[in-house]
Amino acid sequence: MDEFKFIESITPNYYRQSSLMKGIGDDAAVVRPESGLEIVTAVDTMVEDVHFSLKTMKPYHIGYRVLGANISDLAAMGSNPAYYMVSIVIPSHWSDNQLKEIYRGMSDHAKKYRMDLIGGDTVSGNQLVVTVTVFGFVPNGRSRLRSHAREGDIVFVTGHLGDSAYGLHLLFGEKYSSDGAQYFTKRHQLPEPRVHFAEKLQMLNRLCLNDISDGIASEANEVAEASNVEIHLDYHLLPIRDELKEFPFDQQNEWVLSGGEDFELIGTVAEKDWPVVQDAAHSTNTKVTKVGYVKKEGQNSQVYLHAQQEKQILRKTGYVHKQ
Amino acid sequence: MDEFKFIESITPNYYRQSSLMKGIGDDAAVVRPESGLEIVTAVDTMVEDVHFSLKTMKPYHIGYRVLGANISDLAAMGSNPAYYMVSIVIPSHWSDNQLKEIYRGMSDHAKKYRMDLIGGDTVSGNQLVVTVTVFGFVPNGRSRLRSHAREGDIVFVTGHLGDSAYGLHLLFGEKYSSDGAQYFTKRHQLPEPRVHFAEKLQMLNRLCLNDISDGIASEANEVAEASNVEIHLDYHLLPIRDELKEFPFDQQNEWVLSGGEDFELIGTVAEKDWPVVQDAAHSTNTKVTKVGYVKKEGQNSQVYLHAQQEKQILRKTGYVHKQ
Repeated sequence: MDEFKFIESITPNYYRQSSLMKGIGDDAAVVRPESGLEIVTAVDTMVEDVHFSLKTMKPYHIGYRVLGANISDLAAMGSNPAYYMVSIVIPSHWSDNQLKEIYRGMSDHAKKYRMDLIGGDTVSGNQLVVTVTVFGFVPNGRSRLRSHAREGDIVFVTGHLGDSAYGLHLLFGEKYSSDGAQYFTKRHQLPEPRVHFAEKLQMLNRLCLNDISDGIASEANEVAEASNVEIHLDYHLLPIRDELKEFPFDQQNEWVLSGGEDFELIGTVAEKDWPVVQDAAHSTNTKVTKVGYVKKEGQNSQVYLHAQQEKQILRKTGYVHKQ
Repeated sequence: MDEFKFIESITPNYYRQSSLMKGIGDDAAVVRPESGLEIVTAVDTMVEDVHFSLKTMKPYHIGYRVLGANISDLAAMGSNPAYYMVSIVIPSHWSDNQLKEIYRGMSDHAKKYRMDLIGGDTVSGNQLVVTVTVFGFVPNGRSRLRSHAREGDIVFVTGHLGDSAYGLHLLFGEKYSSDGAQYFTKRHQLPEPRVHFAEKLQMLNRLCLNDISDGIASEANEVAEASNVEIHLDYHLLPIRDELKEFPFDQQNEWVLSGGEDFELIGTVAEKDWPVVQDAAHSTNTKVTKVGYVKKEGQNSQVYLHAQQEKQILRKTGYVHKQ
């Protein structure tokens, strides 16, 4: 592969964002943010045979998904996606075409949010590694931190839980050609972060959001710890697709509680602001479900799962046990 | 390795930059830039046995150097370094101590410029990969682009050329314990980007800067192409340490013209502003040498090397040939 030609082939012909002063083609990119906006930035790395495999994803999906994971971080901060940079480690057995497909997957996903590719690095190595840095903007003071949960808040989640994990399960099996199965495999391969929903909530003074990248058990615990509150979840309220309910309870639990990468959001909001969340859900065609509430009990920051009149502690790992 | 414990061990206890709203510990970091400033950002990846080897560098050097390469990009844009994020792919044979040394190298280098570590990712893989994203600030409109060279400009470089390549040569040999040799090996292992010098030039309306990461042949050609000008370099003016001159001419040339990673700067500036450059050099204790001039001849964007009354074309690769 000719590195210069390859870089040329992935360099955009035009940029969409007006705050960009200099994109690809110098020592660094330059952005002039509008006043009143903060910059939100995150980085995420995916490694072949660790985070994905060509057995369950095409190169296009890899690109779509790695950028999606990053966009989801921007959504979870309530910010508007704007830019991304891609650093890629390329093993010699990957073809130019496969690599271009990765970039096409990213580019298609970026287009949905008018994001621009503004930089990157292309190096060789013995294992494919894709590292994406993203940038978004949020009005001053409106970033949605994990530490923003307060006593009395409603806890909600977007979409359905466990879809992506179940999709991966199907991809490892034989029977994923049915229409129903395709919904789930697509949720794994082409995840859609909740950007528009989160943007619609920018009017709220306070809101806590976290994206569900490692399963609700992990993310709810992060919120509880950062906000120093108890989170109480009602298992029967968790939005789970019927298809998953046909499986043994333990298997379901693994997908729903620990199966990450749905890139849905968990949030907490004051009861008085719940109608605003419902409006945002409605206008962006997002399913939002109330799944619990926030309680303050001294310094306790556990997550509790209520089911069949029992209250159990939900650990980060998804492990559930009695008090 | 316990990932959470490791991340805890590298998370800073405090932050230095006042524009930081949220550092490590949420879905993303949040920065509120001062008004009148643009954000400059770049990403750089280093792979074990491709960009570095434990045969010639200690883990501490790897960290110091990978951040240095990024800081050099910020310097080449004339910006003030502020933040960095680190994504690392860790093979199982790397020990916790070695990894901590990489981060200590970065942290020590970051401290010199009051930079804060504000995010990252830690994943496993079969080859060590370190990807660093940096952020700096520059006054509006003062970023130092490659396209800023103009006819009549003086071309200058900082420091000496070929030091790092010669240092690597010594590291592969046996005799690098002498005091003299240590200067060169240090230039390779612990490069010092020209941040303060570039900052001192922020008062200039126009200035072209490029960091010499791939050798002056490559970087001068980048400037010539981006600015659509001829660049004329005088070989006899290039700052070369005496130690290198003891080697055959071809070997010298390789180090001086193509030996990158010196992280010195090449720049072009209007003749009337040359005293400002000299003042900045003096006040920051930086060696600056005039090495040529910029000429405009139609659409020609070649780089010429003048030596022994001959004018030859200097290609990106360092290859020199007659017209």
